[in-house]
Amino acid sequence: MADHVAVPSKKVLTMDTMNQNVKKVEYAVRGPIVQRAAQIEVELQQGVKKPFTEVIRANIGDCHAMGQKPITFFRQVLAVCLYPDLLDDNRFPEDVKSRAQRILHACSGGSLGSYSSSQGIELVRQDVARYIERRDGGIRSDPENIYLTTGASDGIVTMLKMLISGEGSSRTGVMISIPQYPLYSAALAELGAVQINYYLDEEACWSLDIGELKRALTQARKHCAPRVLCIINPGNPTGQVQSRQCIEDVIRFAAEENLFLMADEVYQDNVYADGCEFHSFKKVLFEMGPEYSSRVELASFHSTSKCYMGECGFRGGYMEVLNLDPEVKVQLTKLVSVRLCPPVTGQALMDLVVNPPEPHEPSYHTFVKERTHTLAELAKKASMTQQILNQVPGIKCNPVQGAMYTFPRIHIPPKAVSAAQENGQAPDMFYCIKLLEEMGICLVPGSGFGQKDGTYHFRMTILPPTHKLEVVLEKIKEFHLRFTQQYS
Amino acid sequence: MADHVAVPSKKVLTMDTMNQNVKKVEYAVRGPIVQRAAQIEVELQQGVKKPFTEVIRANIGDCHAMGQKPITFFRQVLAVCLYPDLLDDNRFPEDVKSRAQRILHACSGGSLGSYSSSQGIELVRQDVARYIERRDGGIRSDPENIYLTTGASDGIVTMLKMLISGEGSSRTGVMISIPQYPLYSAALAELGAVQINYYLDEEACWSLDIGELKRALTQARKHCAPRVLCIINPGNPTGQVQSRQCIEDVIRFAAEENLFLMADEVYQDNVYADGCEFHSFKKVLFEMGPEYSSRVELASFHSTSKCYMGECGFRGGYMEVLNLDPEVKVQLTKLVSVRLCPPVTGQALMDLVVNPPEPHEPSYHTFVKERTHTLAELAKKASMTQQILNQVPGIKCNPVQGAMYTFPRIHIPPKAVSAAQENGQAPDMFYCIKLLEEMGICLVPGSGFGQKDGTYHFRMTILPPTHKLEVVLEKIKEFHLRFTQQYS
Repeated sequence: MADHVAVPSKKVLTMDTMNQNVKKVEYAVRGPIVQRAAQIEVELQQGVKKPFTEVIRANIGDCHAMGQKPITFFRQVLAVCLYPDLLDDNRFPEDVKSRAQRILHACSGGSLGSYSSSQGIELVRQDVARYIERRDGGIRSDPENIYLTTGASDGIVTMLKMLISGEGSSRTGVMISIPQYPLYSAALAELGAVQINYYLDEEACWSLDIGELKRALTQARKHCAPRVLCIINPGNPTGQVQSRQCIEDVIRFAAEENLFLMADEVYQDNVYADGCEFHSFKKVLFEMGPEYSSRVELASFHSTSKCYMGECGFRGGYMEVLNLDPEVKVQLTKLVSVRLCPPVTGQALMDLVVNPPEPHEPSYHTFVKERTHTLAELAKKASMTQQILNQVPGIKCNPVQGAMYTFPRIHIPPKAVSAAQENGQAPDMFYCIKLLEEMGICLVPGSGFGQKDGTYHFRMTILPPTHKLEVVLEKIKEFHLRFTQQYS
Repeated sequence: MADHVAVPSKKVLTMDTMNQNVKKVEYAVRGPIVQRAAQIEVELQQGVKKPFTEVIRANIGDCHAMGQKPITFFRQVLAVCLYPDLLDDNRFPEDVKSRAQRILHACSGGSLGSYSSSQGIELVRQDVARYIERRDGGIRSDPENIYLTTGASDGIVTMLKMLISGEGSSRTGVMISIPQYPLYSAALAELGAVQINYYLDEEACWSLDIGELKRALTQARKHCAPRVLCIINPGNPTGQVQSRQCIEDVIRFAAEENLFLMADEVYQDNVYADGCEFHSFKKVLFEMGPEYSSRVELASFHSTSKCYMGECGFRGGYMEVLNLDPEVKVQLTKLVSVRLCPPVTGQALMDLVVNPPEPHEPSYHTFVKERTHTLAELAKKASMTQQILNQVPGIKCNPVQGAMYTFPRIHIPPKAVSAAQENGQAPDMFYCIKLLEEMGICLVPGSGFGQKDGTYHFRMTILPPTHKLEVVLEKIKEFHLRFTQQYS
């Protein structure tokens, strides 16, 4: 190799040579403001004086981190699955033991340490299908249409990956709501798809308007090939719950415009407001009759991370696909096989979520008590959040009908907008950074989710324990008044 | 929407409209032969008569599925982490409890159900760094360079994703060994990279020859931009263990040719042959002096799935990056944040793997006994496999120096080659399908890993329990003799 003595000195992987799509990815939920929050926590530990003693993180739907307790039954079964010697431990009720044995029996070699089939453990997929049937009033669900996933994010990215193709004006366009959960924009950037924004109607409680879908689609058809419509219901970051009528209209629109529907339904148990109810896209699709149910392509997503369980760390989830071309389904199964399988502990947990204790079983009473308590607390906090924020002049907040977030609109005075621009920051980023530095509260600026030009918001979770949430809301109130005064 | 009454009847997602890169993906380890094996299992259950009573799967490195027992200490700590009430259970030794408390303390809200930071729990990354330092004789490892992953596969795909860019003749080329583990070819197909094959030398125990690297590189430079060199050591599917000298030569080659090195070292504890030893790429890189250690970009990968623990289902792993451009590192951290975090149970398990019981702790003795037993069994099976297969005329098998596989060369008579071609099958696929149908043994044809034209192989794991492995080997012998006779 004497002919290669000249050793190149530049790095192989640089900002210029790296994947340029990755550069375009943004993910505000864990963006710069959250990194600054972590720094401040270190500074506090080091004894740096601040006008607060702890950082309260209301930036991410991380339930257990905010003190929510795991469901006892779920954790007991998982502990026995991991260490089956516990089957002889008297502390565990019989239903915990039989459930653990049932799951272990479905794992190769009777161990959670084995790979499962790539689509997920068959028993779990059967249990998921039965759960969906119960939820949707008996409409049939086929375990062959269920794919277990590494959290809902994994399923969403996998389906988008299948759907994105073409170049130039035939490149796949994907319609997403604005505001949106930034997983969508991040995945689209990474995959090089065309993002098509449709705006939710803030004045009508973040509802979805078919006329706006139509506008966005017509405009997008001029420069790309729109093929996918993504819906988040209940909404993230906006907390609305879609009416049955709205879902029907969306399905009709997708059918007429030949769009693949992706329904992100991870907050399906998180519905708080009177008169609101969760309707799955699948159920409505079937109720619209065979003209729709036999034809509209739908992928819907669920997760172990939200609802009353909040088990984010397990990365459990599933997707159900409907009306997928059979050859495409073979391709999907092949694609997921490359990653071998979703985490088996997450699969086991998903099984428990879709198949909780039954009324005659010893764990039932405690399970129902825990679930009811968690959901009641969330409902109380949803209502308190809306009430306190709406007392603040310059903050306007839609009801938190569901999910775990509020996305209030904030008035930012023109002087503050100018100050932000001088800093090279979005005005709501400027606002949130100040709130973090002065109050120790970590929120995510609305610009990270998308919003109408000239409007400003932040996303805040309703997850902190009630007494802490009250502190957060009062601090935001105090800060907002001071901020407004300072820049008036 | 009256203007859209005409309802399109075609599906949105078809073989024509789907992502064409996904169509090119192949993953033999879970390919058609494994699907056929699953069908046969169902047929056996239904009472269909076969010349065997069970299918033995030697197609995938799935340790627990093959009867390997989990390490007691690992499972005890995980059970306590999942259900902390077990902290008061007398069955668990003190080190199990203190280790569980240590991990829980590092999780937000003291729960494995919380998200971790996207790069992984800081404590676990610190423990990984200390493990690497011990392994590599004190060479410093920085926890900031450690990324916890969802199995090694996730880390490998993430790094490839970062590295692949450009179009046409400046499209990134990635050098992979042939035979290879098909995760690599699958990921390159999905990402639309150029695959550059370099052939391992079967005659020299699957060793890596720098001249061959050079040949492959020179040829590839005519049509793409080679920027990455992937190495698997110990080898999958080939079972070789690279010498220190060979690793040094590879590093020098990468430095001279300006290639980013990816070292897949998931079998680092699986070394059986006398005179063979595992050398990490990082250690050799540092021993070559600052000219190399300050400059060569390296990502190396480890996993909870292999070695003596074999915990595939947890999808735990880590990667260590070296000499990464700081701006690129920010991009990498941003990219992994979109998926929120690797499964926290897998992270906890990774922590135990890199930080097992110490000699003074109560669990030490059992831990060492279990680890030694598993590795000794594997060594015995490696040697038995090689010995029995080499007795068969027409099968030639290199020593299984490490990892969990043998990749013997099989002679397929010309008549069988013709018969396969008439079936539209690769000759070794034809062979493996017949072996499955006639003997109930599931192997993966060499064509799924790549091989020199005109040569045929299969990959077989050495994981079945000794008595079953013996049956497998004897059945292969019997089949091979009959097959050869039939087609002579």
